[in-house]
Amino acid sequence: MQWMSTPARLLLAVLFLSFQTMAQTPPRQPTPNDTLKSPNVLAGNRVVVQIYAPKASEVIVSGDFLMGAKPLALTKDANGVWSVTVGPLRPDYYTYTLLVDGVRTMDPKNPVIKQGINSLENVMAVPGAETAFQDNRPVPHGELRQVWYSSRTLGMMRRMHVYTPPGYEKGSTKYPVFYLLHGGGDDDSGWPTVGRAGFILDNLLAAGQAKPMIVVMPNGSMPPPPSSASGAPNQAQAMTRMRALFADELLKEIMPYVEKNYRTLTNRENRAIAGLSMGGFQTLDLTLSRPDLFNYVGVFSSGFFGPSIDEAETKYASALNDPGFNKNKKLFWIGIGTDDFVMDANKKTMAMLDKHQIKYQYKETGGGHTWINWRQYLNEFVPQLFR
Amino acid sequence: MQWMSTPARLLLAVLFLSFQTMAQTPPRQPTPNDTLKSPNVLAGNRVVVQIYAPKASEVIVSGDFLMGAKPLALTKDANGVWSVTVGPLRPDYYTYTLLVDGVRTMDPKNPVIKQGINSLENVMAVPGAETAFQDNRPVPHGELRQVWYSSRTLGMMRRMHVYTPPGYEKGSTKYPVFYLLHGGGDDDSGWPTVGRAGFILDNLLAAGQAKPMIVVMPNGSMPPPPSSASGAPNQAQAMTRMRALFADELLKEIMPYVEKNYRTLTNRENRAIAGLSMGGFQTLDLTLSRPDLFNYVGVFSSGFFGPSIDEAETKYASALNDPGFNKNKKLFWIGIGTDDFVMDANKKTMAMLDKHQIKYQYKETGGGHTWINWRQYLNEFVPQLFR
Repeated sequence: MQWMSTPARLLLAVLFLSFQTMAQTPPRQPTPNDTLKSPNVLAGNRVVVQIYAPKASEVIVSGDFLMGAKPLALTKDANGVWSVTVGPLRPDYYTYTLLVDGVRTMDPKNPVIKQGINSLENVMAVPGAETAFQDNRPVPHGELRQVWYSSRTLGMMRRMHVYTPPGYEKGSTKYPVFYLLHGGGDDDSGWPTVGRAGFILDNLLAAGQAKPMIVVMPNGSMPPPPSSASGAPNQAQAMTRMRALFADELLKEIMPYVEKNYRTLTNRENRAIAGLSMGGFQTLDLTLSRPDLFNYVGVFSSGFFGPSIDEAETKYASALNDPGFNKNKKLFWIGIGTDDFVMDANKKTMAMLDKHQIKYQYKETGGGHTWINWRQYLNEFVPQLFR
Repeated sequence: MQWMSTPARLLLAVLFLSFQTMAQTPPRQPTPNDTLKSPNVLAGNRVVVQIYAPKASEVIVSGDFLMGAKPLALTKDANGVWSVTVGPLRPDYYTYTLLVDGVRTMDPKNPVIKQGINSLENVMAVPGAETAFQDNRPVPHGELRQVWYSSRTLGMMRRMHVYTPPGYEKGSTKYPVFYLLHGGGDDDSGWPTVGRAGFILDNLLAAGQAKPMIVVMPNGSMPPPPSSASGAPNQAQAMTRMRALFADELLKEIMPYVEKNYRTLTNRENRAIAGLSMGGFQTLDLTLSRPDLFNYVGVFSSGFFGPSIDEAETKYASALNDPGFNKNKKLFWIGIGTDDFVMDANKKTMAMLDKHQIKYQYKETGGGHTWINWRQYLNEFVPQLFR
C-alpha cells in the first residue's frame, strides 16, 4: 500500500479477486461486507467507521481522532454492519483501532496502517486545505532510504531511514543533517509513515521555507536486556539504560555512518536534533551531555520522565552551569499540548532549565500526546533550522 | 516495525505501556492475552497460532503455509485462548490471516505484516538454515529507496522502490538495471517487504554470486477507469487496459526517470525484466512488444491470462515470427509451481512460444501461487543476469 497516497481503490483488485475465485474460494452468497467502505468520509468532514461483524456483541473504536475522549461504541444494523459516525473532524490524518468483542481488529476495509514495534493501528485521512503541508503533492520529492548498518554497540543489524532532499542524487553539495527521533513503541518507520516527515520536508522545500538538509531517522528503541536479568526493570532503570544505550548508538554508530556515507556538513552549526516523547527525552540527554554537537534542538511532548529531575540536574551539571551554553544553541524549541499526560515532566524540566538560565522557545498548543501535534511541530521546527 | 528483523520484543514497549497506563487506561484484571505469544515457533519447526477471543464462536486460519490445504479451525481452551499447532514447516517466511467469527483479523500479537493495496496479511518467520538466502544477515546491504515521481501518463504522483547495491553511494560506476514487477493486489512495496528482494540481492552479492545491479520495483497496479465507464469490465478488458497503461508507464515515465537519475547502463545488454503473476503478464507483453529493450527476461507463475492466446499470437506476431528474436535474449526464464492455478495459462503460453521456436528455460517447482516460490525464483534468476 502506498502510504497515504490517493486513496483510489485500484482496478487490479478485480483481477486479483478473480484469481482468488479461480484458485480456491467456493461460490458464496454476497454479503454487506462486499460493498462496505470504511472509513467513509462524508460531506462536512464527518466520518463513518464501520465493520461487518454479524456475530459480535460489542464493537468499540478508539483513536487519536477522539481528542482524548473515551472510546466510542458502534451500533449494529439489521444486516450485521456495526457503524459510528464521528466528526466533523478537522482535516488531518488520524489513527484508530477497533475492538470487536474485545479483540483488537484492524479495519478489514482499510489497508492503511501505522506499524509500531508491538502493534498496528489504522490510519484515516480527512482531506482538506489544512493538510496541505503534509500531503503528497506534485512537487519535487526527496528520497526516503532504508539503510541497514551493522551496529557493534548493539551487536546486531540495525535500520535507519534517511531522507535526502530533491537534487541530492545528481549534485555534489554537502548538506546539514537533522537527526529526528521517534517515541516509545515505535521505530525508525514512525516519522517516514504516520509522521509524514518526507512530505512535510518536500513541501517546505518547494515553498522555499526550509534549507535543503539530510534528515536521519534512526531506530531509537533499544533491545531488551539479557533475559537472565532478574525481574522487570522499573521505569527509571529502564529509561536510564535506554538513555545510555541510545547515546552510544547515535554517537558511535549512526553519526559516523552518516558522516562517512553521505555528503554532510559535520560541524555543530550544521547539526540539529529533535524527538518526540521518548525521543524528546533522548534529545534532552544528548543536548545536555554533549552540548558541543547540536546547535539546533527540538523537544516535542517530552521532559525528564523516568529518572528524577534531581538526577538530571546532577548528571548534566556541567552543561547546566556553563555560562556559554546558550551561545551555541541557535534554537532550543520545546512544544507540548495542553492535554498531554507528560505535561508535568515537561514543566519540571523547563523549571530546571529556567533555574540555570538556559534559554529556550516554548510553544504550547492544544491537544495531547499524538501524531496530530508532532507533525505540526515538525512543520514549525524545520523552517528554523540552519539559518 | 523493522520488516522481519530479529523478532525480539523490545524493552521500550514497557515504557510505552506505562505511558498508556498513565494516560488513560483504568486499572484492570490481567487476562491470558497479556502474556500470549503468537506465532509461537516450537522446537521441530512447529508453530502455534493463537488468539485470545473468549466471546468468539469460531476462529479459522488461512495462509500460504497450508500449501494449498483448506483453512484450519482453531480450538478454544478454558481461558478463552484459541490455538492451533501447525507443521513441521520448512523454514521460511509465511503469510497467514485469522477469521474470528467471520471477521478478517490481524493477529493482535504479531505486528509483522504484508501490505496489499486492499488488504493485510500477517507474516510468520520459521528460522532455519534454509532461509539463509533471504535473511537479514551481517553483510553489506544496499539501500532501498522510496522514490516519488510525477507521472504525466497517469496524471498522478507514483511511487517506486529502487535498490542500489552496496557501494553505490560512494562510487562512480554505472550499473545494469533489473526491473522487477509484483503481482495483482500488491504494489511496489511487495518485493521489498514480503518478497525480501533487498536481502536476497545483498546475500547474493556478498557471496559473489550476482553482478552488482540496480533493481527498480515500480508500482504495476493501474488506477481504475473513470467511474463513468458503464459496468464492471470483464477480466480480458481489464487486462488489456492494464497492459497498455503499464507499458506506457514503464517506457515513458519509469525507465526515463531511472536512466536520468541513477548511474545506469542503458543498452539492452544491461537491462533485465521479470515479474510474478500479473507482473509476469506485463513482462511477457513488454518482452514481445519491445524485443529491443531487455536481454534478460523472467516470468514467474504467469502466462497470457485474460486476453486469449489467439489475441497474443496476433498482437505479438512481429516478435514471434522474427528469426532473430532468440539471438538477443540471453535469458528467457519461466518458472511455476505444479499446484499453481495459472498453470493452464502458463502451458498455453509456452505452447505458443514453442510453436514460434522462441527459446526459454523452464523450471517447474512444487508449490503454488505464493511468495514462497517467488523468493526462490528471484534467488535463482538474479545470478544469471548480466553475464
